[in-house]
Amino acid sequence: MSSIPIQPDVPLGPPHERSDAARNRERLLCAARELVDEFGVEALTMDALACKAQVGKGTVFRRFGSRAGLMMTLLSDSESEFQRGFMFGPPPLGPGGTPSERLMAFGEGRIYFILENGELLKAAATNARNRFDVPATVLAHRHIEVLLREADIADPWVMAMSLLSALDPERIVNDVRVHGISPKRLTESWRELVARLMRSS
Amino acid sequence: MSSIPIQPDVPLGPPHERSDAARNRERLLCAARELVDEFGVEALTMDALACKAQVGKGTVFRRFGSRAGLMMTLLSDSESEFQRGFMFGPPPLGPGGTPSERLMAFGEGRIYFILENGELLKAAATNARNRFDVPATVLAHRHIEVLLREADIADPWVMAMSLLSALDPERIVNDVRVHGISPKRLTESWRELVARLMRSS
Repeated sequence: MSSIPIQPDVPLGPPHERSDAARNRERLLCAARELVDEFGVEALTMDALACKAQVGKGTVFRRFGSRAGLMMTLLSDSESEFQRGFMFGPPPLGPGGTPSERLMAFGEGRIYFILENGELLKAAATNARNRFDVPATVLAHRHIEVLLREADIADPWVMAMSLLSALDPERIVNDVRVHGISPKRLTESWRELVARLMRSS
Repeated sequence: MSSIPIQPDVPLGPPHERSDAARNRERLLCAARELVDEFGVEALTMDALACKAQVGKGTVFRRFGSRAGLMMTLLSDSESEFQRGFMFGPPPLGPGGTPSERLMAFGEGRIYFILENGELLKAAATNARNRFDVPATVLAHRHIEVLLREADIADPWVMAMSLLSALDPERIVNDVRVHGISPKRLTESWRELVARLMRSS
């Protein structure tokens, strides 16, 4: 997994970042999240963010480069936190639980993560490469694959891809928003899927 | 299922279509499929089709209205054939097999269907509505839901959506083209998923 830049004990900003700069960055990201929560991802423009955070537009551009850079940063921060949870956090999500318990907790966590970050995730998943072959997805797939291998699933690579597809952001968001399915129904059905898949024969 | 316009015994064209018109239509669709197979869906333009089928451009427009209309017609013909298979065809796909056998055969058939029609399916799935709430997908979901209900799955609506997500065209095509997974590995893993999900406890 050396190609995936995840480190457990490093704070969000680069270590040499000056603390006032780090604070400004956090304030901007916080304002950006509020904009997305309140008005949707379309409302997240560089102008709107500068206005909301009461800074000059130049500050926003210097910090994130572009609107796409801003969205990647927002998502990457959230993904890093989620990743720390399943790689280094306490059980049942982190190391220590059985593969079945860990996979149940993974899907449950992922469903709530998607419902919090769905607009950003959907905006980022513009084509197959962005859906399947970005570092966060590759890492999630690898994690599921390892758990399935421990449970003696025949082809863990392919099965992990099937399970990850069931956690597709557009699918989860569509179930909830269009069909009125509650998050609880989604997580309970996920737990049933994992329980049936991984029980010993 | 009354909202889904599927009739088992009707030939592809409307019943009153003149037979030479029906033949011309089939010839055009056949030429269109050859273009897609050979050069990808981007190559399927009204001009290219007229040229390939050696007819005037006006004939192509009169028949399909627009390029989007042509693609919908192509896909709809293929989907109808696939639907006839799982709704009225012989077992194990059609009525007569156990829910588990029918669901295994459904996924297997769907994977090969996607690998044949993937470019058209991907071109049609431009947003969540086009991915999840078109008649063909609604019907496939309903079919899986009924089979899962027969097997006493707790929340068959949600579980059917999870299984259908595992058969997402972009995922299947990405696994094969980008990761070099063979169709056989995909169908075998699908069979394992269904077998484990539906075996009695």
